[in-house]
Amino acid sequence: MPEEDVREPGSVGALGEFGLIAALVARLRSTEGVIVGPGDDAAVVAAPDRRVVATMDLLVADRHFRLSSASARDIGRKAAAANLADVAAMGATPTALLLGLAVPGDLEVAWALEFVDGLDEECAAAGAALVGGDVVSAPTVTLAVTALGDLEGRSPVTRAGARPGDLVALCGRLGWSAAGLDAQEQNLGTAYPRLLAAHHRPSPPYAAGPQAADLGATSMIDVSDGLLADLGHVARASGVAVDVFLGSLAPSADLLAAAPALGADPATWVLTGGEDHALVATFPPGTDLPASWRRIGRVGAGSPRVTVDGGPWGGPGGWDHYAAGRS
Amino acid sequence: MPEEDVREPGSVGALGEFGLIAALVARLRSTEGVIVGPGDDAAVVAAPDRRVVATMDLLVADRHFRLSSASARDIGRKAAAANLADVAAMGATPTALLLGLAVPGDLEVAWALEFVDGLDEECAAAGAALVGGDVVSAPTVTLAVTALGDLEGRSPVTRAGARPGDLVALCGRLGWSAAGLDAQEQNLGTAYPRLLAAHHRPSPPYAAGPQAADLGATSMIDVSDGLLADLGHVARASGVAVDVFLGSLAPSADLLAAAPALGADPATWVLTGGEDHALVATFPPGTDLPASWRRIGRVGAGSPRVTVDGGPWGGPGGWDHYAAGRS
Repeated sequence: MPEEDVREPGSVGALGEFGLIAALVARLRSTEGVIVGPGDDAAVVAAPDRRVVATMDLLVADRHFRLSSASARDIGRKAAAANLADVAAMGATPTALLLGLAVPGDLEVAWALEFVDGLDEECAAAGAALVGGDVVSAPTVTLAVTALGDLEGRSPVTRAGARPGDLVALCGRLGWSAAGLDAQEQNLGTAYPRLLAAHHRPSPPYAAGPQAADLGATSMIDVSDGLLADLGHVARASGVAVDVFLGSLAPSADLLAAAPALGADPATWVLTGGEDHALVATFPPGTDLPASWRRIGRVGAGSPRVTVDGGPWGGPGGWDHYAAGRS
Repeated sequence: MPEEDVREPGSVGALGEFGLIAALVARLRSTEGVIVGPGDDAAVVAAPDRRVVATMDLLVADRHFRLSSASARDIGRKAAAANLADVAAMGATPTALLLGLAVPGDLEVAWALEFVDGLDEECAAAGAALVGGDVVSAPTVTLAVTALGDLEGRSPVTRAGARPGDLVALCGRLGWSAAGLDAQEQNLGTAYPRLLAAHHRPSPPYAAGPQAADLGATSMIDVSDGLLADLGHVARASGVAVDVFLGSLAPSADLLAAAPALGADPATWVLTGGEDHALVATFPPGTDLPASWRRIGRVGAGSPRVTVDGGPWGGPGGWDHYAAGRS
C-alpha cells in the first residue's frame, strides 16, 4: 500500500494506506483501558493485573474464511471472536485487539470498513477495543489478529492442570457452527438461519472464562477444533484420560431438526464440530457449578486419551485425527 | 497446515503443523517475564508497570522482504527488530514477541527454523522472548509480528508531544540500510559488507528509548521510513515545524566511501533512508544529553512541516513523498 497501479474509485489502492487507516480508525470505539490508541509507534493498554495475556491467529482467505460466502462484517466478528475466546479460556478478560490487514489494491474500501466494524462489534461484546495494527498490500486477503487480556488477579488457567477425579464441564454451544457450515455447503442455509448465523457469528461465552477461574477450574480450553480434539489437547498437556458422557451432550432441537435433511449425525456435530468457541474446563470434584456450566465428563488417570462413555469414539473427526501421536 | 498434498522430505508440509510448532518452540529462549509460554490458548507475560505497550507489523514476501536475497535468519532478525524498535520508541522495554507464520507446504523446514532463530536472537538482544503465535499454510510466506513492552513507570512518549523550542536529537545510525540496499541491488554488496550487514540486520538502540523517556523526551519515533518522513509524522501529530541541521548529520566514513561507486548522494541516504531504526526524539531546550544522543535539529512553531537548514529538502524521498496532505 499504496498500490500505485490500482486506482479504481472505491478501491483501497485508490484510497492509499494513510487514507484507509484514517477511515478505519475513525470507526473504532475505545474503552477506559486504552491509554494510547491507534496512530503512534505502538498502543498502550491498561494491564492492572501486572500480567498480560496475549494470543494471535493468522487467517488467510480461502483457507480460513471465504470472501464469497461470508460478509466482511461476519469475517471480522469471527476473527475477533476466535482470539478473544482464547483470552477468556485462560481465565482472563479481553482488553485489546491489534489487527494486521493485508489486502489487494483492488479490494473495495467498503469491504475493509465493514470488516473492521465486525471486529469492533465483537470487541465491544467482550469488553475490548481495537487499539492498533498494520495495513499492507498483498495478493491474498490475510488477517493477523492479536488479542490481549487481563487476569484481574486470577491464576491463569492452562491446559495442563486437569487431575484425575476432576469433573469436566461445558459452557456454550457445540455443533452449531458445523451444522451451519453443512447447511451452507448444501445450499440449505436459508432453511436453517439460526445454524447459519452460528456458523458466521460465533458467540463465545466470554464472561464464563473468568467465572470458571474464580470457581477453581484446574484446566480450560475453548472449543475451536471440536470437543474431542480440544479435550485431547487438555489430556496431553495434563497427562490424564478424559471421558465424555454422551448423554450429557444431547443435541439441541435445532441440530436434531436439521440433521436428517442434511444427512448428518447430530452427535458427530456436537463431539467434533469446531468454531463455536464454547469453553470446556475441569473442576475439582464436588465443585458447585452455576447453571450455565453443564457437567459433561470426568477426568481419569492413565495415558492421555479422550473416550466417549468409556470407549473410543468411532465417528469421523475424533481425537485421533488431530493427535500428533497415537496413544 | 498440514498440507495433505505436499510431502517432500524436509518440507513443512511433510512435518505438519504440530511437528513444525514443536520444532520451532524447542529452539526458543525464555525470560523471567514469561509466565505461560508457547503451547496454550494464550501466553501470559509480566507487565509490572500495569500498562502494556503493543504493536504489530504484517510482512509479505516480495513486498517487505525477499526470500531470494536475504537469509531466513536475517529476515527473522529484521522483522523482530522493526517491532521491538517501535516498543522502544514509546519509551518502553520490550518484553515479548508473538509470531504468526504463514508458509507454503513446500517450504523447507530448515528455513522456518533459521527464521525463528533470527527472531529469537533479536528478542534476546532486546531483552524479550518469543512467547506464542500461530503457524498456518498459505501460498505466500507472510509474517505477522506482535511486540509487547513494559514502561517501567515511565509516561509513554508519543509522536504528539513536541513543542516549539524543543531540541531534536538522534541515537543510532541513518542511511546505512539504504546504502546497503543500493549496494546489493548493484551487485556490489560484497564490496561493502558493513553496509550490506546493516541492511539485513538493523541494530536498533533499544535501551535508548527508555533512556530518552527518562531524560524527559517530549516526543519520539523510530526511523523506519526515513528521517524526514518520520519527523513528518512527529510534526503532524504535534502540530509543529521541525528543522534539521544538515551539518549535524555528516555521513559516516562508510557512506562517504561507498557513495561515488554506487552513484548515490550520501545526504539523501541519511535524510531519507529507512529501516535502520535509529531513534529520534525531541527534548526540552537545555536538556543535557549523553554522548549517544546527537542534537540534529530544533522544533519551531507554525504549520506542520519538516525543513533542512530552514528550507525544503529538494532531494527525492523527502517528507512530502509520504505526506497525506501537503502543507
